[in-house]
Amino acid sequence: MMKDSPTLKQDNLLVLDALQGLNKGRAPIWLMRQAGRYMPAYQAVKRGKELVELFRNKDSIVEITMQPIDILGVDAAIVFSDILIILDAFGIDYTFQEKVGPLISKPFDLKQVDSFNVEDKLSFLFEAMKQLSSDLNVPLLGFAGAPFTVASYLIEGGSSRDFKKVKKWIYSDPESFYHLLDRLSDAIALFLDKQIEAGASAVQLFDSWANILSHHDFHKYSLGFVKKILEKRIYKDVPLIYFCRGAGHFSKEIAALGVSCISVDWTTNLKMLRRGLKEVSFQGNLDPALFYGSIKNLQAEASRILTEMKGDGGFIFNLGHGIPPDAPFEKVKFLVEVVKQWQE
Amino acid sequence: MMKDSPTLKQDNLLVLDALQGLNKGRAPIWLMRQAGRYMPAYQAVKRGKELVELFRNKDSIVEITMQPIDILGVDAAIVFSDILIILDAFGIDYTFQEKVGPLISKPFDLKQVDSFNVEDKLSFLFEAMKQLSSDLNVPLLGFAGAPFTVASYLIEGGSSRDFKKVKKWIYSDPESFYHLLDRLSDAIALFLDKQIEAGASAVQLFDSWANILSHHDFHKYSLGFVKKILEKRIYKDVPLIYFCRGAGHFSKEIAALGVSCISVDWTTNLKMLRRGLKEVSFQGNLDPALFYGSIKNLQAEASRILTEMKGDGGFIFNLGHGIPPDAPFEKVKFLVEVVKQWQE
Repeated sequence: MMKDSPTLKQDNLLVLDALQGLNKGRAPIWLMRQAGRYMPAYQAVKRGKELVELFRNKDSIVEITMQPIDILGVDAAIVFSDILIILDAFGIDYTFQEKVGPLISKPFDLKQVDSFNVEDKLSFLFEAMKQLSSDLNVPLLGFAGAPFTVASYLIEGGSSRDFKKVKKWIYSDPESFYHLLDRLSDAIALFLDKQIEAGASAVQLFDSWANILSHHDFHKYSLGFVKKILEKRIYKDVPLIYFCRGAGHFSKEIAALGVSCISVDWTTNLKMLRRGLKEVSFQGNLDPALFYGSIKNLQAEASRILTEMKGDGGFIFNLGHGIPPDAPFEKVKFLVEVVKQWQE
Repeated sequence: MMKDSPTLKQDNLLVLDALQGLNKGRAPIWLMRQAGRYMPAYQAVKRGKELVELFRNKDSIVEITMQPIDILGVDAAIVFSDILIILDAFGIDYTFQEKVGPLISKPFDLKQVDSFNVEDKLSFLFEAMKQLSSDLNVPLLGFAGAPFTVASYLIEGGSSRDFKKVKKWIYSDPESFYHLLDRLSDAIALFLDKQIEAGASAVQLFDSWANILSHHDFHKYSLGFVKKILEKRIYKDVPLIYFCRGAGHFSKEIAALGVSCISVDWTTNLKMLRRGLKEVSFQGNLDPALFYGSIKNLQAEASRILTEMKGDGGFIFNLGHGIPPDAPFEKVKFLVEVVKQWQE
């Protein structure tokens, strides 16, 4: 189904062109977690408020999503949200603890995913996106966590280092784990469609933690559900970007699913990847830890990537993972300038 | 130089044959961290003692190294030690904290690696290995941490989740980081040679943390120093196994360095890897988290790997990482039996 596009006043189409492999201009840039803690303007909005309040409030979503567009001048906006927001559709409660990360309030039980209501429970997000897509002069990206990664948070109760509870579940009772992912993927497919209806020009699926899976289980629990989501969604012509850390070596299989773009981390070389894989766009892949180093090295690494991907119509400059909360704001700003001004 | 072999009474040569790609018998098995906390017999020796005491005492090294041979019947022994033991050669102090892991006692400073004395400072280990190699009826493996991984511990002061200090160093002052790895690699090459003189029939290099590096830096800081060590060591005919988590996609480059065997984690499929890479042996690659699941799934996954690598003369069954301290001992024992008794 073709999306019934609202009238957009987007005059910067670099990212959308690149997602189709048709960009003839400079390499576009946006940055994962470009709206967030590293930015003084964000800190000013956040002060005294709970993170989850900001995520659930239409006005703060709009304001924070706009900040990196206004302040950094990146080529796409990504809606200010969190991959756990989908839990609102299931009525599963969670909080964000300062310096700890997300915490799921109650031990998880399969019954909690029996039913969901995406449209009503996440209306604040869709309302914000409607406004954003009419205000922005760059494309608006929607996103969701992939089923495996959302399930990992649910089962672990938060972030995890070893994912022991998830692994225990998978290796004890793979059938019910599969069922859980299946339920989540129904909600996620709908969630992406609703974001597209609200104005997203493309969507990104974050399977941030799937690299802990065995080769076989990665196919089954990550790629299997990406496939399901791609098949299930209504707006199949809207580009989907897939991101998973450490999954560069799965790129051929990921591309074969029909995603438009693979977001690649810094452990894979994009130029080498491109040699064997023409039919998909790439996004990436600067190591965000470069923000901890010298300006000289930050610039050199950005230039190396830009040189290697020069003239590639299907390339979007990004990081290999999100901006760290303690990244110096000035260095992030510098990076955006380097990329936008770059000439070999 | 050919090693002047002591008279060995090893009658189980499966692992050595497999390291040369010449095994015609069943798939051999040994397990990373096979001597350690999951084992009641080890706990009995450990009781009331500091871990570092055990690592520095000839008799406890011998006793603990022998335990998995006597109790599990694995096909190779690996000397009971830790990758940080090389720090003794530099006079750098460290401890092991219960449930925390290694802690380096003082903030690191480059001067600490100016000089080293492997032979004297690690004589307890070589003495233990001499005794072991004459007592054992299976091959004895020596090992060392690779320069990058040892450097990471030194700089972080212990285990790390984000390796921020290491990254900060690399991206601020790559030259001095390179110098640090260069110093460590001199000591590590000598350390491996001394273990071989003491009776090791093969050695393993653990670059456990190098998968955090960018593609370019992985070549420079991990593979570059593996190459240096391979060139520098005296006993070039003694097989070297290289292990790094999440580095399956570097296998061709690793093999090209001339290592005998690549120890592969569970995120790569060995059968697929073998298709494109004939000239190296593989070790691996069961997910150790299977010890948290059901016996049925443990057996099924072991069988899958054995079936896929059936008849491969260059295959050693192992885990994709070390045995977790809380793995149920009975399940580890069961796995060894499954592999040794396996018939399709």
